Amino acid sequence: MSQAPTYFEADVRLDRNSPVPLYHQIAQPIEDMILSGQLTPGTRLEDELSMARRLNVSRPTARRALQQLGDHGLLVRRRGVGTQVAPTRVHRPNQLQTVFDQMKSEGRKPTTEVLSYGSSPASAEVAAKLEIAPGTNITTIRRLRLCDHQPVGLMFDVVRSSIAPAAIALERDSFESALAERGVIVSMARQTVSARKATNPEAQLLRIPTGSIVLNLQNISYDESGKVTTYGEYLFRADRFALKGTLFAH
Amino acid sequence: MSQAPTYFEADVRLDRNSPVPLYHQIAQPIEDMILSGQLTPGTRLEDELSMARRLNVSRPTARRALQQLGDHGLLVRRRGVGTQVAPTRVHRPNQLQTVFDQMKSEGRKPTTEVLSYGSSPASAEVAAKLEIAPGTNITTIRRLRLCDHQPVGLMFDVVRSSIAPAAIALERDSFESALAERGVIVSMARQTVSARKATNPEAQLLRIPTGSIVLNLQNISYDESGKVTTYGEYLFRADRFALKGTLFAH
Repeated sequence: MSQAPTYFEADVRLDRNSPVPLYHQIAQPIEDMILSGQLTPGTRLEDELSMARRLNVSRPTARRALQQLGDHGLLVRRRGVGTQVAPTRVHRPNQLQTVFDQMKSEGRKPTTEVLSYGSSPASAEVAAKLEIAPGTNITTIRRLRLCDHQPVGLMFDVVRSSIAPAAIALERDSFESALAERGVIVSMARQTVSARKATNPEAQLLRIPTGSIVLNLQNISYDESGKVTTYGEYLFRADRFALKGTLFAH
Repeated sequence: MSQAPTYFEADVRLDRNSPVPLYHQIAQPIEDMILSGQLTPGTRLEDELSMARRLNVSRPTARRALQQLGDHGLLVRRRGVGTQVAPTRVHRPNQLQTVFDQMKSEGRKPTTEVLSYGSSPASAEVAAKLEIAPGTNITTIRRLRLCDHQPVGLMFDVVRSSIAPAAIALERDSFESALAERGVIVSMARQTVSARKATNPEAQLLRIPTGSIVLNLQNISYDESGKVTTYGEYLFRADRFALKGTLFAH
């Protein structure tokens, strides 16, 4: 068994002290390599046993990493051949692309200013939205999203304080990435998109005339166990932003 | 082997003359039964071999039906137990819920008027959107969507004439259902949502003052092979409609 492997072994660096789950640390860089075209369709990948041994992780961890890539349409399993990178047309791009990532993919330079950040016990109304007991400590965060130094969005989020990202993390990256740093992986979101006129205080922050049109995105995010992570309400200047999404029948 | 089966056998009526794929005719009613709660989590389903024999379909057809239900998070496979209805929290509702179905689920009564329906050779611009050769015959359809007899949406669609649904089918149901009747299953859509003011002719059809706010949904639908089926541009009265969606990280 001294022959060179004919399959691709991802050079993955694992941070065992990070709260980010190991399977996610394994799958994410492989996903990036496939989506960027670095790993081409047809490339064979090692099996879960080899991956588990090589990266020194448990077999269920390796299986879950490969499973996640399979779920994203990035890998296909073929009898007698093993696991291969799937043809491009079946790739399922992450549908939960954040607004932050959408802006980056459009060649803009998104930045974030945290306008306010505070904790309090949850009111009955907020508790219902987060599916927690009233009185549980929650953190309320208001952010201004800018693109190339121009205000584009006004973002309001409520999150259980036990998982609330630090303000500094939110000025660096998307809310979802800041949650992932804390080990919370958002896996589903329910969204409602409507449109209305901006109120006077909203218009001032967004630097538009009062009454200008804004897109209103209400968002409830869930982790992998189905628990609500975040309730958010976002306003975007309609003259500077359109929301993009990819939806699948399954 | 005369004991009663301990698993559920779906009473599926197949129309072998329909262009709707057989696996879809099998999976759809089972999906409805699971989502409506008629089939409860933990219920065992027959395996593909039994289903293929009982419904007199090929084994790949039965496999594909079960596969589709598995992809929707509705079935789980367990070693030694077989295929079972999955726990509710892992169900993945169809993300491609049509606006028509959303309106129905909100308790409204959507109806459709076909305003215009015509064929012509595709211009270079339209051909690029549908990913077809310029000059290919296309059908252009304008519809008015009403809820409880009040105009809510103005819908413009372009589709290859070879798969264009009949006007009468579009007055009965959603564009996707009308396509499915022709054997074309929409499996993915790319959407862009923005907001703007209605122009004068738009406002007249929607019965709102010129300049009222409308949601603008641009939609490209794809079939299971990745081929574009439809390019659509839809306007919704912002005072009467918000677009809902569920997004998954995988």
